[in-house]
Amino acid sequence: MDVLGALNLGDIAQTFSKMGMFPVFDLAYYIVSILYLKYEPGSVEVSRRSPVASWLCAMLYCFGSYIMADVMLGSSPLDYFQHNSHILLASAVWYLLFYCPLNLFYKCVAFLPVKLVLVALKEVVRTRKIAAGVHHAFHAYHHGFFIMIIVGYVKGSGVALISNFEQLLRGVWRPETNEIMNMSFPTKASLYGAILFTLQETNWIPMAKSTLILLFTLFMITCKVVMTARHSHGSPFSLIESWVCHLLFGSPLGGAVEDHHGGAAAPVSPSSPAKSKEELSEGTRKRKAKKAE
Amino acid sequence: MDVLGALNLGDIAQTFSKMGMFPVFDLAYYIVSILYLKYEPGSVEVSRRSPVASWLCAMLYCFGSYIMADVMLGSSPLDYFQHNSHILLASAVWYLLFYCPLNLFYKCVAFLPVKLVLVALKEVVRTRKIAAGVHHAFHAYHHGFFIMIIVGYVKGSGVALISNFEQLLRGVWRPETNEIMNMSFPTKASLYGAILFTLQETNWIPMAKSTLILLFTLFMITCKVVMTARHSHGSPFSLIESWVCHLLFGSPLGGAVEDHHGGAAAPVSPSSPAKSKEELSEGTRKRKAKKAE
Amino acid sequence: MDVLGALNLGDIAQTFSKMGMFPVFDLAYYIVSILYLKYEPGSVEVSRRSPVASWLCAMLYCFGSYIMADVMLGSSPLDYFQHNSHILLASAVWYLLFYCPLNLFYKCVAFLPVKLVLVALKEVVRTRKIAAGVHHAFHAYHHGFFIMIIVGYVKGSGVALISNFEQLLRGVWRPETNEIMNMSFPTKASLYGAILFTLQETNWIPMAKSTLILLFTLFMITCKVVMTARHSHGSPFSLIESWVCHLLFGSPLGGAVEDHHGGAAAPVSPSSPAKSKEELSEGTRKRKAKKAE
Repeated sequence: MDVLGALNLGDIAQTFSKMGMFPVFDLAYYIVSILYLKYEPGSVEVSRRSPVASWLCAMLYCFGSYIMADVMLGSSPLDYFQHNSHILLASAVWYLLFYCPLNLFYKCVAFLPVKLVLVALKEVVRTRKIAAGVHHAFHAYHHGFFIMIIVGYVKGSGVALISNFEQLLRGVWRPETNEIMNMSFPTKASLYGAILFTLQETNWIPMAKSTLILLFTLFMITCKVVMTARHSHGSPFSLIESWVCHLLFGSPLGGAVEDHHGGAAAPVSPSSPAKSKEELSEGTRKRKAKKAE
Repeated sequence: MDVLGALNLGDIAQTFSKMGMFPVFDLAYYIVSILYLKYEPGSVEVSRRSPVASWLCAMLYCFGSYIMADVMLGSSPLDYFQHNSHILLASAVWYLLFYCPLNLFYKCVAFLPVKLVLVALKEVVRTRKIAAGVHHAFHAYHHGFFIMIIVGYVKGSGVALISNFEQLLRGVWRPETNEIMNMSFPTKASLYGAILFTLQETNWIPMAKSTLILLFTLFMITCKVVMTARHSHGSPFSLIESWVCHLLFGSPLGGAVEDHHGGAAAPVSPSSPAKSKEELSEGTRKRKAKKAE
Repeated sequence: MDVLGALNLGDIAQTFSKMGMFPVFDLAYYIVSILYLKYEPGSVEVSRRSPVASWLCAMLYCFGSYIMADVMLGSSPLDYFQHNSHILLASAVWYLLFYCPLNLFYKCVAFLPVKLVLVALKEVVRTRKIAAGVHHAFHAYHHGFFIMIIVGYVKGSGVALISNFEQLLRGVWRPETNEIMNMSFPTKASLYGAILFTLQETNWIPMAKSTLILLFTLFMITCKVVMTARHSHGSPFSLIESWVCHLLFGSPLGGAVEDHHGGAAAPVSPSSPAKSKEELSEGTRKRKAKKAE
């Protein structure tokens, strides 16, 4: 019975890891990503004044992870743009989200139940990207553990890591904060995921890659769906992190849960985008997006 | 008679597209480019205090398009610097423009009739660069339409697209604007040119490349020479653009001609460099350059 | 006797240039580099709040020259990170310098006699890097004199050239100055060294490379040790530079020694990091670092 269960899990994982991402999952990824772009204050205004800048930002939101990973491994940053169908699909999503009459498309996808499904699908893509990034780096540098971790990390985090420069494209400059200093949950999870997949790739974790992909995907989906549904931006890592950081790096412990995550952002206004990128409460976001219309 | 005319046009276009750019056309390109650098407020002061920073800026003005296109296609950004004669020629122009006794060289090339000729020659080089950029990208990615357009675009626009970072080199930082948000005429024309040459390269435009080069060059020369002579910075595209943007992107139409182009720059001071880079009226420029001496 | 002397010098130079840098010299390089990072105002605070950002900055301080040279030559910027032992050693130094109980490690290595030895060892590595950078570029571009100089220059200067962006990682943004506009002594020496090694590589200087390495190392060690010991940030080049700049670039001569170097920084606060990176007087530094604890 147990053996059969294990076999089944392995089979499911195998099937799951072979599943194509295009177009359903990628579509969800593009929708959620560009939705977050629309939540950014000022982005709707930019889309009216300068469609080219808005389109470029949307492309960075959708393909930033590919661009950065290609840069990190010395390939052409435009390499992914040879997939015309992906670019056209993302462009269509961008157009519908920003310019659809009556804002209909936006209202559909921002409707909470729909959005929860899309967020779940997006996390499937994110996990795949991390695994693919680590694998890609492994092929280029068989013993480059740090390279694997970094490439997996940027593949998972995407545009968040270059949000300072993405904002600059929209005429916004916030040098006092960045995603590395104030990591949001998806960025942190990408870092931990990249470490896990690197350990798996170098055989330090005795587990099939497909199983790890399945488990990590389930973890990410659970976390993000719960966080999105509850409009929360706490992190499931914060308790253990605050202890580890206290022990290793002498970070203050008292009220560490908020302190390590929120305290860092203290001098920054509460609606700072590095913090709020993916974690701002739904309510504020909608208000902002509506005002911007 | 008609056939003969067509034949002649084809022959002329063929001859024209075979014509070498070095040294005459390139020299004009360097002179006009570094002239625009000298028009930038503060650049003369930087040339006195830090010749190395000034020289680097001049190189970015002359070779920014090559550097960016190489980066976009994953090559070494210094690749073009192997052409020592080009670098030396540009350096000589930089030296003469900034340090010539009595400012003689500057006075010669900034004299309007001379400048009009140089501007015309510069546009010849720009068109060639766009065509070469598209062709180069086509060879790397046969179906990468977006890549061809982007590479042709950066080859035509040159330093303008990275003007924020070029300014940073001179200690100036203006995050509230950039060339993508407020495209000047040459940048816009480069974008449209890149689209045209991409369509030609992929056989969507039934026209020989040499003919397209000739026609686009003539269009660019006419526009730029007229604009330089009239000290204007309107754009021949603005009417059609305002309608297209209104229909597609819901941009406001009333007074759209100024609104789409000037409105975007409204919060920015009228002498903002992104706007004025190549389009500031001659008078203001000369005054500024003289004051800076 | 003279021949024997020459032979001996050649032998010594040969042996010296064959000497491995890892781990002793590299260790000194990492210690001094990360020490300078700790001197930066705010860096200790960042290390408490965001260890990842602090670690990344430390890596940029240690490996910035490799990263930049790889970028300049079109390779992967992470290429050097395949040397796990180097990364681990630098990470250990970073950990000890920032998190060692009682700040013991910092106190040891910042003790002047120890520091002078480490500074001397660091200059050995710097000279090697310049030579290796020029040689690497020479292999890629046999006649690319400018490329050789630029690559040698970035290999010698390291993180200083990208200090604006390294600071951004720590939430600091000082656009009004940069290392190119206000070169510190090591940056300037790297530029001159890169020119010398390029001339040697292209046979314009009739001297064995090993001899040039030995002589340049001795020059750098002497200068840096004296400057560190005397807490000075004058430059041995300033007199000749001020004359050359006056003749070639019309820079003001009166009080030129301070003017060319200090004058440029006049509008900047005296503790500006571009200036002070490696040259701030010991006293101020220690006070700052202590306050930051």
